[in-house]
Amino acid sequence: MKALVWDGDALTLRDRPDPSQSGNDAIVRVHLAGICNTDLEIVRGYMGFRGTPGHEIVGTVIAGPDAWLGARVVAEINFACGTCSMCRRDLGRHCPTRRVMGILDADGGFAEYVAVPLENLHRVPDSIADDQAVFVEPLAAAFEILAQLDVTRGQSCTVLGDGKLGLLAAQVLSSAGVRVRAVGKHPDKLAILARRDIETVLLEDWDREPAEIVVEATGSAAGFATAVASTLPRGTLVLKTTVAEQPGIDLAPIVINEINVLGSRCGLFPPALAALTSNSIDVKSLISETLPLKRSIDAFEVAQQRESLKVVIAVAD
Amino acid sequence: MKALVWDGDALTLRDRPDPSQSGNDAIVRVHLAGICNTDLEIVRGYMGFRGTPGHEIVGTVIAGPDAWLGARVVAEINFACGTCSMCRRDLGRHCPTRRVMGILDADGGFAEYVAVPLENLHRVPDSIADDQAVFVEPLAAAFEILAQLDVTRGQSCTVLGDGKLGLLAAQVLSSAGVRVRAVGKHPDKLAILARRDIETVLLEDWDREPAEIVVEATGSAAGFATAVASTLPRGTLVLKTTVAEQPGIDLAPIVINEINVLGSRCGLFPPALAALTSNSIDVKSLISETLPLKRSIDAFEVAQQRESLKVVIAVAD
Repeated sequence: MKALVWDGDALTLRDRPDPSQSGNDAIVRVHLAGICNTDLEIVRGYMGFRGTPGHEIVGTVIAGPDAWLGARVVAEINFACGTCSMCRRDLGRHCPTRRVMGILDADGGFAEYVAVPLENLHRVPDSIADDQAVFVEPLAAAFEILAQLDVTRGQSCTVLGDGKLGLLAAQVLSSAGVRVRAVGKHPDKLAILARRDIETVLLEDWDREPAEIVVEATGSAAGFATAVASTLPRGTLVLKTTVAEQPGIDLAPIVINEINVLGSRCGLFPPALAALTSNSIDVKSLISETLPLKRSIDAFEVAQQRESLKVVIAVAD
Repeated sequence: MKALVWDGDALTLRDRPDPSQSGNDAIVRVHLAGICNTDLEIVRGYMGFRGTPGHEIVGTVIAGPDAWLGARVVAEINFACGTCSMCRRDLGRHCPTRRVMGILDADGGFAEYVAVPLENLHRVPDSIADDQAVFVEPLAAAFEILAQLDVTRGQSCTVLGDGKLGLLAAQVLSSAGVRVRAVGKHPDKLAILARRDIETVLLEDWDREPAEIVVEATGSAAGFATAVASTLPRGTLVLKTTVAEQPGIDLAPIVINEINVLGSRCGLFPPALAALTSNSIDVKSLISETLPLKRSIDAFEVAQQRESLKVVIAVAD
């Protein structure tokens, strides 16, 4: 099969052996795969990953148990042991021996086929198109905020960052009744939220009024200090940005204002699938470009550009 | 009256005018006042405070409404407006216009007399001796953890730091049924906890096994990274240390492991008073030395020494 491979030095499109179905795995023929910021970090050395990246996929099961054959699916990315204390609490995404599709010890979806444990698969309802389903993984990461934090209608919330995750988090929190203000640098990206009646403001015009909930999704090292300074005392700062840099950070305001800094990463898929079924979240507008697998290296170039949102690789026609 | 005064350059014992009773204040004749790490930071420039420090006091009301005259009292340190949104939520300690006794725009208790708003006073039951009551403020800061965080019996908890706050936090969490392991550098300090059947371990012998709850009370910049690394995924890191330094911090593990970093500062007094009434927390063992007000500058010297725990200034005989 054709697969994009990161060898630690370069990203190349190669012929690789098809994955063989075994045990509790299914083989998924990939339709679409989205490029995530984590993929961009991987090709800068993050996690020391080697192999085929790609963890936002939608595809069709072509090998595995009869019950799954032909199913259109999305796949949770953490391949967990199923037996440890984290897994028993339904927190397989924190299983200490997990593999992670396209990120840690498991090939991902920038390839014609990918092997996925059956327990990680979710069927995609017919009402959800492929170009929506490819957002289930990042949308689940946005819904993770609601899984971690009890929000109440009318709470004030500032979402910092108008990248992909910021736009999804703003919509998710708004759909939960939170009064969201999205702060960003890109009028065209913020416009996606404004069309959903979410308040938006350009960073240069922002009054920095503190909010009860602040979501840090800027992807920049400087965002954290801004987020701390704009969280009300006893408020919650949801930290979505992972930056490899080691910023100089003043922790004192976190203590003085008793801020709750909540690290937030992957989420379970059902809430994201439900939201796409009810069409309550606009994901299609986040697609900047769709390129075929043979142009996947170009796709990475496009995804690195500051003005880009989601770049999707169309693996199968 | 005699009062210790920090003028931004030096700490001196001076004659100052007695505070005059007015409005809603009471005048408290101070019996004992404890030196807190915040006081040591104030004389290094923290908060830009000028005046008489001291925010851990027990004393007797000598001027004010008849109902309070002669009462032995302790005093909550945040002098709040009483009307803002924080105050209406019983969070006057986060009132944006608050003064703070001995820390911000209000003289404190290293003096013969101090003025305190009536709503900040709590009567001290007869069963609590002065040398216990002087710990109500720091003990309330330890109980604040339980006000912010729902703990369950048997949860694992590591308390990092065997200073005053660490020793109080370890006892408070243990009294709530949490399985506490206290990690410190001082066998004699840890022995105070061992006598209360709390597991202790020297830092050099600690296996760094992660826990569900980690309390960072080391007072050092390096403590935060250690705390992050020893918090289980989805666990809570209670941050008590305020350090003026700007450490290089890697925030990525907070996101990856979805750690909840909970800044924690002052607490309300009733739980601390109740614990001292039931004698469930040993505070007296934390007193390293008690010195009279005329030796208060020496007392600050003693408090700075690494082996010291609480240094108490005996203001009145």
